[in-house]
Amino acid sequence: MPALHLPHDRYLHPDPVRKPIALALYEQVADLPLICPHGHVDPRVFADPDYSFGSPVDLFIIPDHYIFRMLYSQGIPLESLGIPRRDGGPVEQDHRRIWQIFAEHYHLFRGTPTGMWLNHELHDLFGVRQRLDGDSAQAIYDQIQERLATPEFRPRRLYRRFNIQVLCTTDPATSTLEHHQAIRDSGWDGDIRPTFRPDGVVNLETPDWQAQIQELSRVSGVDVHSYATFIQALEERRAFFKRMGATATDHAARTPYTEELSPREAEAIFQRALQGEASQEDATRFTGHMLMEMARMSVEDGLVMQLHPGAFRDHNRLIYERFGPNMGGDIPLATEYTRNLRPLLNRYGNDPRLTLILFTLDESTYSRELAPLAGHYPALKLGPPWWFHDSWEGMARFRQRVMETAGLHNTVGFNDDTRAFPSIPARHDLARRADANWLADLVARHVVAMDEAQEMATLLAYGLAKQGYKLG
Amino acid sequence: MPALHLPHDRYLHPDPVRKPIALALYEQVADLPLICPHGHVDPRVFADPDYSFGSPVDLFIIPDHYIFRMLYSQGIPLESLGIPRRDGGPVEQDHRRIWQIFAEHYHLFRGTPTGMWLNHELHDLFGVRQRLDGDSAQAIYDQIQERLATPEFRPRRLYRRFNIQVLCTTDPATSTLEHHQAIRDSGWDGDIRPTFRPDGVVNLETPDWQAQIQELSRVSGVDVHSYATFIQALEERRAFFKRMGATATDHAARTPYTEELSPREAEAIFQRALQGEASQEDATRFTGHMLMEMARMSVEDGLVMQLHPGAFRDHNRLIYERFGPNMGGDIPLATEYTRNLRPLLNRYGNDPRLTLILFTLDESTYSRELAPLAGHYPALKLGPPWWFHDSWEGMARFRQRVMETAGLHNTVGFNDDTRAFPSIPARHDLARRADANWLADLVARHVVAMDEAQEMATLLAYGLAKQGYKLG
Amino acid sequence: MPALHLPHDRYLHPDPVRKPIALALYEQVADLPLICPHGHVDPRVFADPDYSFGSPVDLFIIPDHYIFRMLYSQGIPLESLGIPRRDGGPVEQDHRRIWQIFAEHYHLFRGTPTGMWLNHELHDLFGVRQRLDGDSAQAIYDQIQERLATPEFRPRRLYRRFNIQVLCTTDPATSTLEHHQAIRDSGWDGDIRPTFRPDGVVNLETPDWQAQIQELSRVSGVDVHSYATFIQALEERRAFFKRMGATATDHAARTPYTEELSPREAEAIFQRALQGEASQEDATRFTGHMLMEMARMSVEDGLVMQLHPGAFRDHNRLIYERFGPNMGGDIPLATEYTRNLRPLLNRYGNDPRLTLILFTLDESTYSRELAPLAGHYPALKLGPPWWFHDSWEGMARFRQRVMETAGLHNTVGFNDDTRAFPSIPARHDLARRADANWLADLVARHVVAMDEAQEMATLLAYGLAKQGYKLG
Repeated sequence: MPALHLPHDRYLHPDPVRKPIALALYEQVADLPLICPHGHVDPRVFADPDYSFGSPVDLFIIPDHYIFRMLYSQGIPLESLGIPRRDGGPVEQDHRRIWQIFAEHYHLFRGTPTGMWLNHELHDLFGVRQRLDGDSAQAIYDQIQERLATPEFRPRRLYRRFNIQVLCTTDPATSTLEHHQAIRDSGWDGDIRPTFRPDGVVNLETPDWQAQIQELSRVSGVDVHSYATFIQALEERRAFFKRMGATATDHAARTPYTEELSPREAEAIFQRALQGEASQEDATRFTGHMLMEMARMSVEDGLVMQLHPGAFRDHNRLIYERFGPNMGGDIPLATEYTRNLRPLLNRYGNDPRLTLILFTLDESTYSRELAPLAGHYPALKLGPPWWFHDSWEGMARFRQRVMETAGLHNTVGFNDDTRAFPSIPARHDLARRADANWLADLVARHVVAMDEAQEMATLLAYGLAKQGYKLG
Repeated sequence: MPALHLPHDRYLHPDPVRKPIALALYEQVADLPLICPHGHVDPRVFADPDYSFGSPVDLFIIPDHYIFRMLYSQGIPLESLGIPRRDGGPVEQDHRRIWQIFAEHYHLFRGTPTGMWLNHELHDLFGVRQRLDGDSAQAIYDQIQERLATPEFRPRRLYRRFNIQVLCTTDPATSTLEHHQAIRDSGWDGDIRPTFRPDGVVNLETPDWQAQIQELSRVSGVDVHSYATFIQALEERRAFFKRMGATATDHAARTPYTEELSPREAEAIFQRALQGEASQEDATRFTGHMLMEMARMSVEDGLVMQLHPGAFRDHNRLIYERFGPNMGGDIPLATEYTRNLRPLLNRYGNDPRLTLILFTLDESTYSRELAPLAGHYPALKLGPPWWFHDSWEGMARFRQRVMETAGLHNTVGFNDDTRAFPSIPARHDLARRADANWLADLVARHVVAMDEAQEMATLLAYGLAKQGYKLG
Repeated sequence: MPALHLPHDRYLHPDPVRKPIALALYEQVADLPLICPHGHVDPRVFADPDYSFGSPVDLFIIPDHYIFRMLYSQGIPLESLGIPRRDGGPVEQDHRRIWQIFAEHYHLFRGTPTGMWLNHELHDLFGVRQRLDGDSAQAIYDQIQERLATPEFRPRRLYRRFNIQVLCTTDPATSTLEHHQAIRDSGWDGDIRPTFRPDGVVNLETPDWQAQIQELSRVSGVDVHSYATFIQALEERRAFFKRMGATATDHAARTPYTEELSPREAEAIFQRALQGEASQEDATRFTGHMLMEMARMSVEDGLVMQLHPGAFRDHNRLIYERFGPNMGGDIPLATEYTRNLRPLLNRYGNDPRLTLILFTLDESTYSRELAPLAGHYPALKLGPPWWFHDSWEGMARFRQRVMETAGLHNTVGFNDDTRAFPSIPARHDLARRADANWLADLVARHVVAMDEAQEMATLLAYGLAKQGYKLG
């Protein structure tokens, strides 16, 4: 059976001039603690000290849309992969059969970032030394299964083993943060923090928006019956999240459109929404206005504001209806920042109390809009190199197109942005290698000196995220 | 006189680590048969066993808008290159003089893909060993002229020499495919297949649309007087093309806009068109609707559907009016796929019976829209790396920006897409070298192992096109 | 203190195969005279033979928005950098303190093109051999100060030392070109030429447009009270600029929209503008029309026409209001050329008497629109590799995405586009290195032969700009 090799110098520049430089820079940062300021790990996994990840399929396949969307694209039904249906209809239950399908199609991940993470996890976390394929499938299943059953694979133990310094989750504005509370109450000293994500109550097109508003009333203790009380409830919630350790908020929107509504307009739209009569234009304008309100609140309470626009959510209606949201069917849209963000930036972008971190899915905006904006406005910083694809080549392109105009200090290092907790070290490792390559090229060309690159490497791997997200 | 050198390892990574890997991968696929699933070679050249290409100018210059548009861009009138005028006005008739102009401006093609193909053809096909320039022009003309006169240069002989396994032409829906019939009747065993391209009857803005509809009636035997009979005639034609060996259809559109009209709307628009009263909006909506109808038919009859949107045809009105269409004046437009294709993909994209192959001219959509769409929808595959420019750097960018998100198996290898039959080996050779470079980088960085890269190289050069177009 | 090293082979490909080729090509062009066909140096610096650049801060910081926008993006107030306020409010006057701030933040420029120029200037022009930082700040200030005081640092002396062959300034249509006249009258033999930039009178949204029109009347001697007299005045001005040595015009616009108005429409809009009643749509259409008029005039008088669309000027309102225009707050917009330029190109693009040089800020148009357009229309050429950012990586991307489709001869080499006169050699040196890299890759891959690359290198560094701008 073919062996699974993961050489120490993998992914680095192959040429003899840049490789040793890249390797030295990588080695310098490889073991730095992990700062995880943005992601989607369920806090429940840390609240329960005995939490188990289940079977290899529960761990690797069912929760990871990167994996099942690729299999689906090649005609493999999601039902055969055990993905639960909304209607409770039958799906494959035999995890060994699911694993076998996965293994037989593992070649689909050749040359993909998902393949890079999977190999890293299999090799480093589970000690696998054969390539995964149809022949080795069941033996590897056994091997993973066995390890998962050991105490070393409880999430709190992995948190330490992974050398995580802080990990932020993403939580709806209506969350009671009960798992975060349980973690605190347990006395465990891992640093797990919530992030305030109010999309469900801010976006008037949320399917169950009115129910969300009732929930907001309930958890905030503010009776939300008007725009003013809505704002009041949000401010209460932000204060609560902050008390629970949050340092940031997070906002999605189809576009980065911003507009300041008059109080009267905001109230009128809010009332229409309460009566189920808000139009699509109302929703767009209200979202644009609320982004400005959120910037205002961030100026006041100091929470870092994250904005990631440009995804067409749940593009595949059939998959959405059968399996629900977040099933690998979010597709990027061309995104315009220069005009859309101007109202917000003109109002708050010169204020040093605001940190606004922008994410994007549209590479054509890297050098055209994002780098020039971030290289000018004091409040603006650029988020991780390539949200969504989290791709090896994408990270290199981000560095190449953004950095020389935006400047290193207007960026915030790496975010793993994942719900797959065990993939976190693999993702950071990949980013650290990508950044070592970027810097090694600058050193080899004498654009920066080695000591300068060393400082930059540490910032990219650790300092910028910690600082940018006010985590230390 | 300066020599024309074409080293065996040309175009491959120059560094000593990646070059031997790239060379090994290239050598593995260099002599594989050519699959030519999409192109514009005139089937007439194979129908007549004694077909001759004419003079060097007839072969290289007059039919190749890549060549004359570059000369034109530098102020050389098309008349002086022998390009026939629509009005029959005078153009240069002396092919030796035309060749001399071409040779004196051959430096314009330095560093261009056209230059790379031309050098390959001159060297490998015609045994030229000097660089083409004003001094060598006439001697090289003699040398090509002489070879063209020999029996080895009949198209059927070249087909074998080029090691072509199958070649698909592009034919209007109204074609009687008489040349394809003649090829079959002749007993020659070359595999030349038609492709069904109904743009002329589907696009209501075709200048002579009504005449085309009459022609459609005539060849289909269906009296087309309504939307229903239009559909019936198209279905008949598809069945005919399929009987004649077609495995695919091909569709151009200014945008990939799709929309399903009600039967009543479709009928109303069709009637307006028959009366010469269709508006521009009618035409846009009808094209969008017909793309969906074509997808439906493909689900039913199994023909692979190709869509290449985004060209502004005949941008230069003067050239169009004087010389006609396809004169090097097609200019790409920014193209939006995420919203535009959603109706079609939501209706048919989950159906494994459909193969929809997308081409593009807009690189900004590679990582933003095309790779995520192809990496999700079972029916969707991505066409050749860079339609239109067919460029060396463009192919590298396609691989770099598309593959890790879309996955190799959601792409369909290479298309030469040419009307210049003798350039086919040069184009495939270039693509095989580009793909060897892409893979060699992955191997040198340990992203994939050599045996994996070898499998991938064969797929890229041969298997994906054959499979994706159902050619064997 | 850390030393400032600038190795002779810096920035060139680091690998041992391409570096010697790149170095040979670079060395061949490194000392060629500089052609500076487009820039913003104040002609006053040459009119006064004793002109002095002032302090190091006057030279490096106050006039250079590349520098202060980066410092500003990190929260350093422009007032503390001595940038004069419109309202005359207090700003830092102590240039040594400003320099200290700059030096303490010099790490912000690591890996940026600004950092590359600054190091080049410090090293080559001022003999600095230590890195600039907080510790070395004052010693380096002294060193620069001292040199600036010597006669070698008078602009006319530097013009010779820099080996400039010709330098074009940019001047409003209403300029009397008195400094250009003074240079001529002085008998100094430097070749300083004006460029005709009529934006202030063409753009109806210019804040003081009516005053500009009065000024136009005054300087042209034509009483501008109608569209016809407006055109007449512009034609007079162009003739005047041409007599003063101009070979080119320069036009900015938010988009490259072009449209030919009827004389009646043009007159109606012009009259509304005179009465202060022109709408935004009027302004857009009038600009689009005037671009066509300017093309017509260029056909007639032979002045090369430059167009650089796509900047959102003065995006940051607060900075604009406090400090004025051109303060580092211009942000690019997505730009559409294919449809927008069609009216102009259809009317004048086939005319070999016109040279239209396009600039862009939107890289997504490189391969999609600009290269195909330039590779077809005889009148069209592509401007410098990356206006605005002038970035190292950006230049490489321009060459990679444009050249193989547009062809070398449809481009015009390099423009430094700077108001910072002493940075001119550093900018040309960077471009020559970037071009050497591009060509070295082609040579190493056997796409072009070394002697071909040598010709191309000379064209890129010298010939194309001279020829394209009719400067010799």
